Amino acid sequence: MLNETHDPALRSWVASANEPGCDFPIQNLPFAVFRRAGSGEKFRGGVAIGDQIFDLVQLASTGLLEGCAAEAAQAGGQEKLNALMALGPSAWSALRLALSRMLREDAVGHDWLSSCLVPQSQAEYDVPARIGDYTDFYTSVFHATNIGRQFRPDNPLLPNYKWVPIGYHGRSSSIGISGESFHRPVGQTMPPGATTPQVVPSRRLDIELELGIFIGPGNAKGTRISMAQADDHVFGICLLNDWSARDLQGWEYQPLGPFLSKNFASTISPWVVTLEALAPFRTTFHRDESDPQPLPYLDSADNRASGAFDIQLDVQLQTDAMRRAALAGASICRTSYRHAYWTVAQMVTHHTVNGCNLQPGDLFGSGTLSGPGAGEAAALIEITTGGKNPITLPNGESRTWLEDGDSVTLRGWCERPGAARIGFGECVGTVLPAITA
Amino acid sequence: MLNETHDPALRSWVASANEPGCDFPIQNLPFAVFRRAGSGEKFRGGVAIGDQIFDLVQLASTGLLEGCAAEAAQAGGQEKLNALMALGPSAWSALRLALSRMLREDAVGHDWLSSCLVPQSQAEYDVPARIGDYTDFYTSVFHATNIGRQFRPDNPLLPNYKWVPIGYHGRSSSIGISGESFHRPVGQTMPPGATTPQVVPSRRLDIELELGIFIGPGNAKGTRISMAQADDHVFGICLLNDWSARDLQGWEYQPLGPFLSKNFASTISPWVVTLEALAPFRTTFHRDESDPQPLPYLDSADNRASGAFDIQLDVQLQTDAMRRAALAGASICRTSYRHAYWTVAQMVTHHTVNGCNLQPGDLFGSGTLSGPGAGEAAALIEITTGGKNPITLPNGESRTWLEDGDSVTLRGWCERPGAARIGFGECVGTVLPAITA
Repeated sequence: MLNETHDPALRSWVASANEPGCDFPIQNLPFAVFRRAGSGEKFRGGVAIGDQIFDLVQLASTGLLEGCAAEAAQAGGQEKLNALMALGPSAWSALRLALSRMLREDAVGHDWLSSCLVPQSQAEYDVPARIGDYTDFYTSVFHATNIGRQFRPDNPLLPNYKWVPIGYHGRSSSIGISGESFHRPVGQTMPPGATTPQVVPSRRLDIELELGIFIGPGNAKGTRISMAQADDHVFGICLLNDWSARDLQGWEYQPLGPFLSKNFASTISPWVVTLEALAPFRTTFHRDESDPQPLPYLDSADNRASGAFDIQLDVQLQTDAMRRAALAGASICRTSYRHAYWTVAQMVTHHTVNGCNLQPGDLFGSGTLSGPGAGEAAALIEITTGGKNPITLPNGESRTWLEDGDSVTLRGWCERPGAARIGFGECVGTVLPAITA
Repeated sequence: MLNETHDPALRSWVASANEPGCDFPIQNLPFAVFRRAGSGEKFRGGVAIGDQIFDLVQLASTGLLEGCAAEAAQAGGQEKLNALMALGPSAWSALRLALSRMLREDAVGHDWLSSCLVPQSQAEYDVPARIGDYTDFYTSVFHATNIGRQFRPDNPLLPNYKWVPIGYHGRSSSIGISGESFHRPVGQTMPPGATTPQVVPSRRLDIELELGIFIGPGNAKGTRISMAQADDHVFGICLLNDWSARDLQGWEYQPLGPFLSKNFASTISPWVVTLEALAPFRTTFHRDESDPQPLPYLDSADNRASGAFDIQLDVQLQTDAMRRAALAGASICRTSYRHAYWTVAQMVTHHTVNGCNLQPGDLFGSGTLSGPGAGEAAALIEITTGGKNPITLPNGESRTWLEDGDSVTLRGWCERPGAARIGFGECVGTVLPAITA
């Protein structure tokens, strides 16, 4: 891996950034908003380097930056990253280059720059943007097929799927940051054979392994973003757990889609990884021989060649019993984002084909990222075949759906020979008992 | 009507407020954000009185208010009304009382207060809140039945309808203010018999007559708002046109609901009418003998007795030819909000039963407010039976769906003997040709 090399431009004077397996080498430089935990300080933007955070407010106050990079650091020092997101790729690039030069092993004056560092172990994080609108897509054809098969065994995939990047609007107010706990939702369900709905804590609480895509510069209402322009409107990518109450969903979702089954909580990771950092992990997107070509407005040579990202993904479940026994969580899914049917660029372009205006800080969800293989299903509804096949965990417990006290950790990373590892950190959420009073 | 009386407490020194048929007598006092048109001034809050706007920034600067009322006027003087909305009903009431005392016919010093007035004819308006999340409900059983009949003639109403106040998340970024024009959306449609979708300007562009409900104080994530508390979380009500592209909708909406068919534009009226102003027009809510009683969490004696509002509603369509001939628009729908199956309080309570957090400035749409009778259908898809029965307009033109250049005006008002008329003003939007480049 490049960060094992001795080229000082590819290593950092922050020694932890050079360790094999580190999520945050100098090639990554993802953004978050943070503060010292329990300090009452204002949240502000920072950049991960090794096990440290490079504080953008401290950096801006040094006066070491000029031009675009200074403007970007200033914007990134605010309580939310919307202003930085609005600046666009040339400003992001300028800041990345300046940070990279300051953090490389042979940077001049780096002893002094260490005053800009805050240990990640001492930090707490907030949702990195004021999310104006949150749109959840449905880009895994394997997820759509697995779910469809439970409702329509003979015709699992709807006829629009391979033409339309299906999406729907979600709830932004209840998006929380990794580390949060939330109460099991209560709501209406209609059990099989019943004639009156029950109002009860959800008995079919699920995860959805997704990626979150933060939008950079927006478009004016009435205008479109073409495939050629789409990547310039994307600030970066994080992890997203779209918690879902399947029993509430089944009763409420016709005819207008999921609502209370999804909007009680969604959890994202604090670190937003830029497309520049992910560039070495671009790949061709998934299509079978029999699949239709994308319609012209959703097609481009670049997208065919490199529209997808090979981001490795893992889901771990830690039960309360595991936690009390000091056992690590058990992996229940391993997959990659490369299996998605629709790319980030296609999501952006489709969302705006009708003139819908995106705004800096808007969040897209990729949809549940199930892959084609065994062990690649990314929600319990698929893993347990709608609750019919419970899984057995390494400590002997079994799970059909989430139980109170369960913690779920999503992880993501990119790795390949000849490139530095680009990690996403983790996205953790814990289920608390329902409040029934 | 009370505003024809000579009781000086029920009349205003703003003479236009006392004229019969005025939407904005002293009993109304709705809020908007405005500025002098073309002035480049900051938008700020104001209150309608007759044909004038009482400027809350000017008022706050007089120092005439104290306590809660002063705090509310200060909050209402900002560019968006979120801070005022967050204060809650006792602050809104205090400000309303103070305004009412200042504006009554026998108020002392009103010559001097006239410096706080800006003529509505010189004003322009903005969306009154930073809308964090927009939720669109589906509260007319007549609309749900009319639409359902086109897809499922034998079983028009889905089994959840009479138990669940169905809602889904919509797009907040594309909500615009009355007076806006928007381009006909382009998108994917799958014509009958085709095997490949077309990407074309929508040929089935429609209106939806709705009311918009602005949320006041929110609730913390994980907590609920009971029926008894629900009204205290509602700031007020405006008009809402939820423009819809039916051909895009038909192709995209399975399985996750409407998306690009709705999010290109939604138009609201500038004036938000408070629940205090609407109190004389509360009424029992609609239920047939055979309908189930609401589940306990959606039921209260107050809601049964006075949960609904008898708001008269009218939709006028003015074509380009009418405009060029200086003809007024033709009414294509007359109905009332009293026909809705679910009340505002039930929407608030249902939305939070799972712990979903509402925030000040969130907007709910009521859903298309079709009534039971002839002429009470509130969208063209119902009026023309899915496009099969075009309507003929008074000037001889016909319409199946909206054409380029069409303007649609929604109006709302409350009237009954012994009470002042409470009007909503109007909500106007105009269709521009699609941009196809």
